[in-house]
Amino acid sequence: MYVYELNLRVRYAETDQMQYVYYGNYATYFEVARVEALRNLGYSYKKLEQEGVMMPVLENFSKFIRPARYDDLLRICVRVEELPTARMRFDYEIYNEENTLLHIGYTLLVFVSTQTMRPVRCPDTMTNLLEKFFNK
Amino acid sequence: MYVYELNLRVRYAETDQMQYVYYGNYATYFEVARVEALRNLGYSYKKLEQEGVMMPVLENFSKFIRPARYDDLLRICVRVEELPTARMRFDYEIYNEENTLLHIGYTLLVFVSTQTMRPVRCPDTMTNLLEKFFNK
Amino acid sequence: MYVYELNLRVRYAETDQMQYVYYGNYATYFEVARVEALRNLGYSYKKLEQEGVMMPVLENFSKFIRPARYDDLLRICVRVEELPTARMRFDYEIYNEENTLLHIGYTLLVFVSTQTMRPVRCPDTMTNLLEKFFNK
Amino acid sequence: MYVYELNLRVRYAETDQMQYVYYGNYATYFEVARVEALRNLGYSYKKLEQEGVMMPVLENFSKFIRPARYDDLLRICVRVEELPTARMRFDYEIYNEENTLLHIGYTLLVFVSTQTMRPVRCPDTMTNLLEKFFNK
Repeated sequence: MYVYELNLRVRYAETDQMQYVYYGNYATYFEVARVEALRNLGYSYKKLEQEGVMMPVLENFSKFIRPARYDDLLRICVRVEELPTARMRFDYEIYNEENTLLHIGYTLLVFVSTQTMRPVRCPDTMTNLLEKFFNK
Repeated sequence: MYVYELNLRVRYAETDQMQYVYYGNYATYFEVARVEALRNLGYSYKKLEQEGVMMPVLENFSKFIRPARYDDLLRICVRVEELPTARMRFDYEIYNEENTLLHIGYTLLVFVSTQTMRPVRCPDTMTNLLEKFFNK
Repeated sequence: MYVYELNLRVRYAETDQMQYVYYGNYATYFEVARVEALRNLGYSYKKLEQEGVMMPVLENFSKFIRPARYDDLLRICVRVEELPTARMRFDYEIYNEENTLLHIGYTLLVFVSTQTMRPVRCPDTMTNLLEKFFNK
Repeated sequence: MYVYELNLRVRYAETDQMQYVYYGNYATYFEVARVEALRNLGYSYKKLEQEGVMMPVLENFSKFIRPARYDDLLRICVRVEELPTARMRFDYEIYNEENTLLHIGYTLLVFVSTQTMRPVRCPDTMTNLLEKFFNK
C-alpha cells in the first residue's frame, strides 16, 4: 500500500453560505492529493498527459462526516491500496488541525490513450515506482 | 416517486483541459437539479434556510459513463424515490441532446436546525407537497 | 450597438461564507452572458473554436455595487458597443429582481488562431451578423 | 510599501478546454495572495471576520499577458502600496517558473462591520502591523 499525506488550506472561494466547504469542492481536494501523491513518487501527471495518456474519472464518492471550514489547514491522507492495472483507485481521509476526521472518499480512474481515446494499461514507469510499496 | 427533469447548458468555466466537464462540477449540476425539483413542487430551498433549516450533504456519489462537453445542453433527470424522514436522497441521470446517458449519481442530505445545529425531521410542508407522489 | 439580456439564477456553489456571490464568479456570469449574446445573434462560440479560432481574455474588470445572493434571479444586460476588429469588448450590467443595479464590468477579448496561436481578425460571419446593429 | 511573495500550484480544476487557467480563477489566486500576505504580517483574515469585520470587494481588475497552465508553479507578488483607511488595495503580479510575467491585477476592498453592515475604518491592529513598511 502506498500512502501519502499533504496539507491544504481552505480558500474563501471554496466556502458556501452555510459556512462550510461547498460539497463539490472535495473533488478538487482529492485531485490535488492524487497529483501530489504521484509527484512524491517521482511521477508527474502533467507529463503523463504530455506523453499521451490521460486519467478520466470513472467513479467518485464522498462521505461528509464533519464540515471543513474557511482557513482550516486540512491534512489529506491518500492511499493506493492496489497496484493499478487498467484502473487506479485512490482512497482519502481528510482531517482538520485538531486531528478530527472530517471526510472520507475515493476516486476510481482509468488510463486512456489521448490518441485513440481507448483504455490502456497503467504505464510501466508508474507501476515500477509503485511496486516497492506492494508485497509480492 | 417524484421525478423532475431540467435542462442545463455546460459553461466554459466548467470544462477542463481534457475538454470534459471537470469531475467535481457534477456536484453543482446535482445541486441545481435538487433545487429546481423542489421549486417545481412549490418549495424553495432558500426559504427553508431562512426559516432555520439547512440541508448539508452526508454522501455524494458520481459514476462517469461518458463525458459532458462544453456547450452541451444537458437533460438532468432527478428522482426522489422515498419520502424524506430525517434524511433525503436524490438520484440523478444526466443525458446529452442525443439522449445518451452520460452520468448517474445520488446525494444523501440531512435536515439540520441552523439554531441548534442538530438534526431535525423533514418539514411538514415539504412532506405534504411530496406525499401525493407516493402510494400508501 | 448590440444589446442582449438574459436571466441567470445564482447557485449555492457560487456563494461564499459572507453570504454573497463569491467575487470571482462574476467572470463566469460574464462568460455565460457573452456566449448567449452571440447565440442570440445566430453565432456559436463552440463552433468558432471548432473552426480554429478561440477568444482568450485580455482584460477583465468588475465593479461591485451591491452583492448578489443565493437564488437571486439575475438579469444580465450585455452590450457590444463597437464592431470587433482584432479585439472584442463586452460590457455588462447585472440587476436583481427588484431592478437594483448590483454589478458592472467589461471583458476585452482577442481572436486567436488555434493553429498558429497568433492573433487573427474577427471572422466575417460574426462581423456580418453584428453589422446591422451599428450605423454607418 | 508592503510586499509579499508566495508560490501556488495550478490545479487541474482551474484549467479550461483552451488549456489555460480559466480567466475567472485569477480572482481566487488574488484571494490566496491577500490572505497569505496578511498572515505573514501576523494578521488572520479569518479572525478579522470572527471579530465582526469583513472585507467585501469593490473593484477587481485582471490583465492577461500570457496564460498560466496546468501544474505551473506560479509566483504571486502582492503589494500594498498605501496604508489602508476605509479601503484597502492589493496589487498583484503573477510569474511562472521561467520568471515570465503572466498576469497583473488589483483588488480594492472595503472594511464593513458584520453587525451594522456599514463601512468601518481599517482595524488598528492591522494598521499597526503595516505601518513599519511605510515611511512617514
